[in-house]
Amino acid sequence: MKTYVKQDFPLAEVRRHLEPGPIVLVSSAWKGKTNIMTMGWHMVMGFTPSLIGCYIWDNNHSFEMVRKSRECVINVPTFDLLDTAIGIGNCSGAEVDKFDKFGLTAGEAEMVGAPLIKECYANFERRLADAKLIRNYSLFVWEVVKAHVAKSPKNPETVHYRGNGEFMVAGRSVSRRRLFKAPNL
Amino acid sequence: MKTYVKQDFPLAEVRRHLEPGPIVLVSSAWKGKTNIMTMGWHMVMGFTPSLIGCYIWDNNHSFEMVRKSRECVINVPTFDLLDTAIGIGNCSGAEVDKFDKFGLTAGEAEMVGAPLIKECYANFERRLADAKLIRNYSLFVWEVVKAHVAKSPKNPETVHYRGNGEFMVAGRSVSRRRLFKAPNL
Repeated sequence: MKTYVKQDFPLAEVRRHLEPGPIVLVSSAWKGKTNIMTMGWHMVMGFTPSLIGCYIWDNNHSFEMVRKSRECVINVPTFDLLDTAIGIGNCSGAEVDKFDKFGLTAGEAEMVGAPLIKECYANFERRLADAKLIRNYSLFVWEVVKAHVAKSPKNPETVHYRGNGEFMVAGRSVSRRRLFKAPNL
Repeated sequence: MKTYVKQDFPLAEVRRHLEPGPIVLVSSAWKGKTNIMTMGWHMVMGFTPSLIGCYIWDNNHSFEMVRKSRECVINVPTFDLLDTAIGIGNCSGAEVDKFDKFGLTAGEAEMVGAPLIKECYANFERRLADAKLIRNYSLFVWEVVKAHVAKSPKNPETVHYRGNGEFMVAGRSVSRRRLFKAPNL
């Protein structure tokens, strides 16, 4: 599988890769084991600090791993990884080593203990910014503390879940900068 | 501008149109006035009830309108409305009547006082399900109580914001149903 050459990316601009709404892979580590889950329920909640809200169902094996370690990495896969992402979402880390099973390469993160997935277009290292909404809402509020993004392409072919096994693949890009007032960009 | 012929849509399947991450138009009504805001920070938080979390900045004119009325409509625009959606996001309801300024048609909702935008592909009527996260997180948790979706096309050309005036337009659709275990669809 293809890996991407990456560079540091400004934390305040992480929204570029998450606000369009792609499915992501959440990688975690706890007590010497790693895991990966596929996730579609997330939203941007701030620029500086760079905050991302994620709904993680407490039935997922990753739930306790990210809650206890208070860290994880959000990895953005592209279309070539779609079947892998689905496979990851259809088995449990309680039973299999997902890096091994799916032939993915674990890279070392700089700021957190969780591994990066090298085959993904972007990797965002995150620390838990707020745990207060987990119990009642299953909502984790994360701060991105380090961002790695592929040098090219500029606009990746991300995949977006519709439910029922159907996906939308990212299409063309258009700019409308001229229609914005500067503070609203 | 084009309007869509719509039909009732199952509340438990609203994720189909929001989880892919499109920009949406939030319409509201309070004390005889209506307003519209453009929004990209939202996430699915549940199927039954159908819950959607939205981050709404308290500087927006719509913030107090939706907080006080405890209702709104999420309208999903397609590519033909992109410039309109940007225009809506770049002026304030404190100064202009946005339905009038942008030539949009206000339709009557069934379950809430806020108007539908007829030119949008889908309209989701919502009531505030939980106000407790507004003060500290600007996060509104809404329940969709009525859904109207265009009869066709099945897969609309939604628009997804990257920041800096750049958008991704929804591309092709693919099905991978065969790769899912039934409970995970």
